[in-house]
Amino acid sequence: MKINGTPYRSVWLNEKDGWSVHIFDQTRLPFSLDILRLTTPQAVAHAICTMQVRGAPLIGAVAAYGLALALREDASDTSLENQASMLAATRPTAINLRWAIERMLTRLRPTPPAQRVAAAYEEAGRICDEDAAQNEAIGHYGLALIREIAKTKKAGSPINLLTHCNAGWIATVDWGTALAPIYMAHDEGLNVHVWVDETRPRNQGAALTAWELGSHGVPHTVIVDNAGGHLMQHGQVDMVIVGTDRVTRTGDVANKIGTYLKALAAHDNAIPFWVALPSTTIDWTVADGVQEIPIEERAASEVTHVSGKTAEGSVARVQITPDGSSAANPAFDVTPARLVTGLITERGTCPATAQGLRSLFPEI
Amino acid sequence: MKINGTPYRSVWLNEKDGWSVHIFDQTRLPFSLDILRLTTPQAVAHAICTMQVRGAPLIGAVAAYGLALALREDASDTSLENQASMLAATRPTAINLRWAIERMLTRLRPTPPAQRVAAAYEEAGRICDEDAAQNEAIGHYGLALIREIAKTKKAGSPINLLTHCNAGWIATVDWGTALAPIYMAHDEGLNVHVWVDETRPRNQGAALTAWELGSHGVPHTVIVDNAGGHLMQHGQVDMVIVGTDRVTRTGDVANKIGTYLKALAAHDNAIPFWVALPSTTIDWTVADGVQEIPIEERAASEVTHVSGKTAEGSVARVQITPDGSSAANPAFDVTPARLVTGLITERGTCPATAQGLRSLFPEI
Repeated sequence: MKINGTPYRSVWLNEKDGWSVHIFDQTRLPFSLDILRLTTPQAVAHAICTMQVRGAPLIGAVAAYGLALALREDASDTSLENQASMLAATRPTAINLRWAIERMLTRLRPTPPAQRVAAAYEEAGRICDEDAAQNEAIGHYGLALIREIAKTKKAGSPINLLTHCNAGWIATVDWGTALAPIYMAHDEGLNVHVWVDETRPRNQGAALTAWELGSHGVPHTVIVDNAGGHLMQHGQVDMVIVGTDRVTRTGDVANKIGTYLKALAAHDNAIPFWVALPSTTIDWTVADGVQEIPIEERAASEVTHVSGKTAEGSVARVQITPDGSSAANPAFDVTPARLVTGLITERGTCPATAQGLRSLFPEI
Repeated sequence: MKINGTPYRSVWLNEKDGWSVHIFDQTRLPFSLDILRLTTPQAVAHAICTMQVRGAPLIGAVAAYGLALALREDASDTSLENQASMLAATRPTAINLRWAIERMLTRLRPTPPAQRVAAAYEEAGRICDEDAAQNEAIGHYGLALIREIAKTKKAGSPINLLTHCNAGWIATVDWGTALAPIYMAHDEGLNVHVWVDETRPRNQGAALTAWELGSHGVPHTVIVDNAGGHLMQHGQVDMVIVGTDRVTRTGDVANKIGTYLKALAAHDNAIPFWVALPSTTIDWTVADGVQEIPIEERAASEVTHVSGKTAEGSVARVQITPDGSSAANPAFDVTPARLVTGLITERGTCPATAQGLRSLFPEI
């Protein structure tokens, strides 16, 4: 997608050296667009752990390049296995991360060490290209849903979409998952307006989704995470669309903490609640998302402190809780499939059920 | 209640002059305990509008004193009516504000102007004393509910309560509504632990409830507003208890934005959801809360900016949204009665139904 007219992906190789890995430092957005150059697997792990890169699909792609960087240092079997484990452990909830590492291992284990570096870059590049292509397909299938809603709206009335967290192009290699249909709808002239949940504690909605949508010119309004239910009660939301970090084979959806609350409100107000995902996000081994998906507990300081821009234009962190009050910070929750209207995948839409998923992916 | 061992109310008259009105500047908590002295009705209106005082019961009590201050300046009928209207317009959602002003008018209209100042102070003082007594009664009735939960817990397991926003002693004249039972449970040695929703956008949970509970020594953990559903799914919440700004005669509950989402999650997980209120919060004229209660829309800057303490110890405001992204800020939502387990009033508990309320208040 474009920033000020220039097309970017969220991860790319340095054009001059051909091997070092560039990302945006997403902890600095929206106030500063800093491009980082990663040269070691440790730097990749650090970028994932500190959320300089985040978003389930992007984490997988960057981790794949992390393995390529590791093999540049040591292409032995031991190095391959150790560095793959190290990278896979950086975030526990996202399934794409494990999927990408597994795919790299499947390709690299039988490859002679001398050819592993080239093979790793090739495979990581393919993961990136496939992610972009999958998201574009998701966008087309989601666009069809938005077009249907558009038919029901009076002329001049906006189509109000609500999204949580950031499942946009900078959460993926390109296009985004939940935002891909919105970009396409906007680009074809549909009158879309997006309610952007700020998404505490890290404010990826307020910081990243608002920035993405604004950069692309999509009308949007930031709201606190508390506000969505009220808007839904009053007919101000036509559709909820979110991304996901892991979908079970039965259609349960792990996504950023608070997604479950929006799904409950959508269900209570008969508003469609859609989840957009590449099939790499599906964990075919898990049936009960609430009981089985590990939920990452992140630092309490993400809750007790908030970062933003001061009146002077610098970025500062302020404490919002009293000294001595502790905080808990579960980073994800699981929305039971019964609350999900449907899933939007690169192969089309389906009900959030085992049967629905199997109908789209019969080979699994 | 006590701050560092010294008992306070949330509003009191200056001991020396006997007429000026003291409040805590709640916009400065938890980082600074500033006591303000209000000497004019305009200062009272400003304090309510800017939320230096907030909390439905406290707003009513302070507005009553505001009318007393107005009458010190001009005790005529015109002044009485004009200043009452001015004060009643400071916040649209809380019903106690209108109730307190109406009560003052009922007392003062038949009173000769020369006796109105003394009568106004007397009546405002009564409103304060009655609020404190009502909240103490609410505390006892709520305590009985917590004791029942305590019986079901294993020895050593905490009773986990979740609350939203601040319905504590500084939201009232004393004791609080939702927090009164919690203080009493803690004081009698029950092992209570409170999940404190931070309550964006103004963070009254993170700032005020955490501060109150911490000052009193009640174990608590601050969470983002997004986290409650996940905790409820995993058995980590035994009871939700919140305050309210207005309850309809049918039991619908207007409260701080986001309350509805917690009620949905409690309902989905079969967790009791109780609302604590003095009967002055009941609006007997309204039947459908979602359709009829006006919801205050506050400044977008409350969403786009967050205040807190810097590393240097000063209080600063940081911007969390990109330049150019707009924000919406509905301050309250309405939880339909069907999601409310019951109401805790100064006359006891009742179902959140017209019949339930009428059984406790048959005279209305």
